[in-house]
Amino acid sequence: MANIEVNKTAHPFDKARLEALLNRRFFYAPAFEIYGGVAGLYDYGPPGSSLQSNIIAEWRRHFIIEEHMLELDTTIMTPAPVFETSGHVARFADWMVKDLKTGEVLRADHLVKNVLSDRLLGDQEARGLAAQPMKEDDKKKKKKKEKAQPNVVQLPDVVVAEYEHILAQLDNYSGPELGELCQKHKITNPDSGNEVSEPQLFNLMFASSIGPTGQHPGYLRPETAQGHFLNFSRLLEFNNGRVPFASAQIGRAFRNEISPRAGLLRVREFTMAEIEHYVDPEDKRHARFADVRDIVLGLLDRHVQTAGSTQVTPMRVGEAVDKGIIANETLGYFLARIWLFLTKIGINPRRLRFRQHMANEMAHYATDCWDAEIENSTGWTECVGCADRAAYDLSVHSQRTGHPLVVRQALKEPVVTERLVAEFNKKNLGKQHGKDSVVIQTAVENLDEVMLERLKDELTQGPSTITSSDGREFKLTSDLLTIERKTFKQSVREFIPNVIEPSFGLGRILYTLLEHSFWSREQDVERGVLSLPTVVAPTKVLIVPLSAKEEFDPLVQEVSTKLRKAGVFSRVDDSNTSIGKRYARNDELGTPFGLTLDFASVQNRTMTLRERDTTGQLIGPIDEVIATVTELVQGSIDWAEACRRLPAYDGVQAVD
Amino acid sequence: MANIEVNKTAHPFDKARLEALLNRRFFYAPAFEIYGGVAGLYDYGPPGSSLQSNIIAEWRRHFIIEEHMLELDTTIMTPAPVFETSGHVARFADWMVKDLKTGEVLRADHLVKNVLSDRLLGDQEARGLAAQPMKEDDKKKKKKKEKAQPNVVQLPDVVVAEYEHILAQLDNYSGPELGELCQKHKITNPDSGNEVSEPQLFNLMFASSIGPTGQHPGYLRPETAQGHFLNFSRLLEFNNGRVPFASAQIGRAFRNEISPRAGLLRVREFTMAEIEHYVDPEDKRHARFADVRDIVLGLLDRHVQTAGSTQVTPMRVGEAVDKGIIANETLGYFLARIWLFLTKIGINPRRLRFRQHMANEMAHYATDCWDAEIENSTGWTECVGCADRAAYDLSVHSQRTGHPLVVRQALKEPVVTERLVAEFNKKNLGKQHGKDSVVIQTAVENLDEVMLERLKDELTQGPSTITSSDGREFKLTSDLLTIERKTFKQSVREFIPNVIEPSFGLGRILYTLLEHSFWSREQDVERGVLSLPTVVAPTKVLIVPLSAKEEFDPLVQEVSTKLRKAGVFSRVDDSNTSIGKRYARNDELGTPFGLTLDFASVQNRTMTLRERDTTGQLIGPIDEVIATVTELVQGSIDWAEACRRLPAYDGVQAVD
Repeated sequence: MANIEVNKTAHPFDKARLEALLNRRFFYAPAFEIYGGVAGLYDYGPPGSSLQSNIIAEWRRHFIIEEHMLELDTTIMTPAPVFETSGHVARFADWMVKDLKTGEVLRADHLVKNVLSDRLLGDQEARGLAAQPMKEDDKKKKKKKEKAQPNVVQLPDVVVAEYEHILAQLDNYSGPELGELCQKHKITNPDSGNEVSEPQLFNLMFASSIGPTGQHPGYLRPETAQGHFLNFSRLLEFNNGRVPFASAQIGRAFRNEISPRAGLLRVREFTMAEIEHYVDPEDKRHARFADVRDIVLGLLDRHVQTAGSTQVTPMRVGEAVDKGIIANETLGYFLARIWLFLTKIGINPRRLRFRQHMANEMAHYATDCWDAEIENSTGWTECVGCADRAAYDLSVHSQRTGHPLVVRQALKEPVVTERLVAEFNKKNLGKQHGKDSVVIQTAVENLDEVMLERLKDELTQGPSTITSSDGREFKLTSDLLTIERKTFKQSVREFIPNVIEPSFGLGRILYTLLEHSFWSREQDVERGVLSLPTVVAPTKVLIVPLSAKEEFDPLVQEVSTKLRKAGVFSRVDDSNTSIGKRYARNDELGTPFGLTLDFASVQNRTMTLRERDTTGQLIGPIDEVIATVTELVQGSIDWAEACRRLPAYDGVQAVD
Repeated sequence: MANIEVNKTAHPFDKARLEALLNRRFFYAPAFEIYGGVAGLYDYGPPGSSLQSNIIAEWRRHFIIEEHMLELDTTIMTPAPVFETSGHVARFADWMVKDLKTGEVLRADHLVKNVLSDRLLGDQEARGLAAQPMKEDDKKKKKKKEKAQPNVVQLPDVVVAEYEHILAQLDNYSGPELGELCQKHKITNPDSGNEVSEPQLFNLMFASSIGPTGQHPGYLRPETAQGHFLNFSRLLEFNNGRVPFASAQIGRAFRNEISPRAGLLRVREFTMAEIEHYVDPEDKRHARFADVRDIVLGLLDRHVQTAGSTQVTPMRVGEAVDKGIIANETLGYFLARIWLFLTKIGINPRRLRFRQHMANEMAHYATDCWDAEIENSTGWTECVGCADRAAYDLSVHSQRTGHPLVVRQALKEPVVTERLVAEFNKKNLGKQHGKDSVVIQTAVENLDEVMLERLKDELTQGPSTITSSDGREFKLTSDLLTIERKTFKQSVREFIPNVIEPSFGLGRILYTLLEHSFWSREQDVERGVLSLPTVVAPTKVLIVPLSAKEEFDPLVQEVSTKLRKAGVFSRVDDSNTSIGKRYARNDELGTPFGLTLDFASVQNRTMTLRERDTTGQLIGPIDEVIATVTELVQGSIDWAEACRRLPAYDGVQAVD
């Protein structure tokens, strides 16, 4: 029984069933549901928040502790000047269109995508090519749309090719271009059939006001990153002045999405985990790159996309960096570490790819960016962004505040340079030129090395002239200034570090993980299971007494206490229903192990251990079973090893 | 050496030194500092955020895991109707006054408190009674104020008594009463000497707008509680329909404080940990109350305060509940559990008291409330509130949304009741009274048992009359209705549970903990130490190689890896400075243990172990020292036991 092969793909993925399960078991639910809810806001219930905190705990181990990152917890409410400087007030915006009759607001790129995808689906159906099973979500969408716009219409081949080309590089269009696409392809609001307005920018930050007098406008942060950058000097000092190092933060961020409709995949409030890794711009190697060189990632670079394709190429990280497809070792290192993290918590590696941003798609601060995209029932979704923000943020905050955000590095060998320097006789200059002295000095200082050399030569011959920035001409003589070659010794190098930023959307990861973990028992499609890896499962062990009768209480207490001491998180289910139903409930909750206490336990101190995916059961003395399940939870043994240690239990399932 | 008695009170507490340390080591810092900062917003640096997450982890163990609470993670951005219903839009406000000339805004109660406290201090000084050392903060405040308003002035005894009486019940005054106090006692803005306006209410919630069209006003939650209440039905179902149970949530909340000036003690954005414990209103006993009966708490009840005193009475929780000082077992249970938690993480129990709210002070939703107050350099500060919110929140949300937030409990014995019931002959009623039929029915249904009995009697005699709610009179006859006594059997009891809410302000706890942990070495006031308990210390073990030379690398790696495997969070400090300086730095960071690797380690595989508070050092083979320090960190042995296991190290301190 212990070695049953589990067929997890016996039933096709059924999104409606998964959603019903997640709702029934309160993984998450629309926030303010009894008030009618608000689009894009969700509350996590007990299993959802446990799953989330386990993902966060693993993230902290995998990134912060493993790499000695400096953790931060910074402020969400942010005064406006910070986001003016960072560029978010001007540019953190999406293009929206309005239905010209109903006033409904739609995101322009989503509108184009939905309408053209629908037309392609209709075309396929008309050609009788709907051979590939349609994704659940597409089916539903299609069904809904058909009422307003029946679209089982065959398109000319050239139109199909054009639509496919548009969709492959959809993220590359500007607002006006999206407007032109709507015009050219007669794209209207599919819910009403009405025309839509020209695209307009809508800023995605939530605005508020700080303090009682209303004089301090503020925004809720749309990312945690600025909180890292503003503290850069303190972080650098904490790290004894050395780079590279990284800061990390897990926290809430807010984006006032235009019309979020995709469940946890597009929300207005979400938990992020962000790393800002500060490197020398002239040396983006990574000390531990050798550890990840041979990891193979599915890459979709920008050239492939702009050529209109979405073909993924599997490639070793080392090779991708060597070939310049991934810009540098540090970026490559983090892509590989992201892959390791996601697959460890249960994301299916065959449904994970890394897509490079195209030129127009890139955020205003980024010089290169790769997204870890995870395939799910709605398509491929960005779940982690990994951007090289270069020196953008530290530079702009430095300029705006006058506070230098730089690294000062003692040079092993001082750098000696020579250059021409003009020295003025201030007294003579002031006497002859009065308040124009500064203008003249500035004009001379602005000369380059060649011009300065020429002026030097001229002055040895006699008087010369210089033109100021406002176009006036001044006479220069050798009693006003001398020009000489001087030697400079520089023992400190000063630079603004570059920033590599892996940024995780935890809600999206959590949702795609739930999709990847969900299946139904071969013998019964109603019996849903969430095969969450033990490391992230909300509850590790379920304790199931035969009934809530008092005679089981001492044993339940004993097992529960021993597990807690061993650091294993368990729950007791003594609800008034059969053991089979309680196990089914916990399969839905993703609980990997179950311990049953029955009359045999009371008499002989034995206990059975059940594994969720195989439903295999073992039996043994209570303490031995506790030791085994503890090792299973810690990951030091697997189920096959547990089956070698404990005899299989073939008894009839105890029923209440 | 290991048993040196440490004198932690050799130097008086010096707040300026502590603040310099916290700033230098980046425990926390004003947010947006390089932009000039914003009052009441702070960022936590690496040691501060570690300390915070360790406090949270311990909170989760102590409350959520120990008591099987249901954890939630709900939304911060909240649509306005929720807070209209909860009463926050109307009543979550503070009284503010404006300086009539400068327009500066001040919180009215703080103004009265500061000015009267200053006058009392000046009086004491004038009487030569400044015998008790003034609190640091008072000194500074006083110094600042003396410039504007010298106040070393003796007051008449009757005035002193009046001021003391006002201060003891300050939280009990309404806004208009605070305005009268300002008039009567000539209280002006101490910074300018100008008069202030009448107090006005200022709502403390940050406002924003959800979605692109601006039609959904929203607020940032000022507490996490409403997120629990709105999900009550789902939580109850998750708990198999049973009460009592508790939900718990750790998350950010926002209050737009009027003029926050007290560091982490009064901020605009903060992390809370809140428990909502749902109980049967008719049975507020607690199953585990016996565990805490004998814990002694310092109580300051409302009667003592309204009598103008602040005298704390130590009392067993059991006795306080028996005497009705604490309203019920559940409230008492949580007060004791709060005491256990706070003292476990390092709060000094002698500086912890429980103060009951006075009648006018209570939040609009509470029927009883006790604050855990912690003494610090600014006085006594509320750090945990523990309120009995009764059925307030669930009732109002139920009424507003029409969604019942109730518990349905099967009764063991059905309850049988008898009452009079009127039954109408609808046909006759309709014929005679048409559309007034409903008015008549309603009027009869609104009659109480006595009136119904009388009507029954009258109808047996002949016609009677009834008056509708709008004052019209109708004739009733026995062909319209009959009134009979009927028997009802109720097998389900339905009730709205009451809510006991312990609510923790984590930033305030963190700051007072830092004050309680700070001291300076007897021999040198400059050598600050934070004696944080190991359970919350940001880093548990510091690994200190003699230098950054490569020969130590393999050992540093080995020790670091072994500690990580043992679950012990360590950091390496190989900075280019003496071991003594590195230890001093880590005393400031509160790191309880240090491991030194020197040439002897390379040759003999020995290592020294240093304890922070005593500076005692032990020596032993590397693996033995790792085993010992692991047990120290886990709390299974103490330092005295470690001293029995390993020999003292009396060698001269290795110096780089």
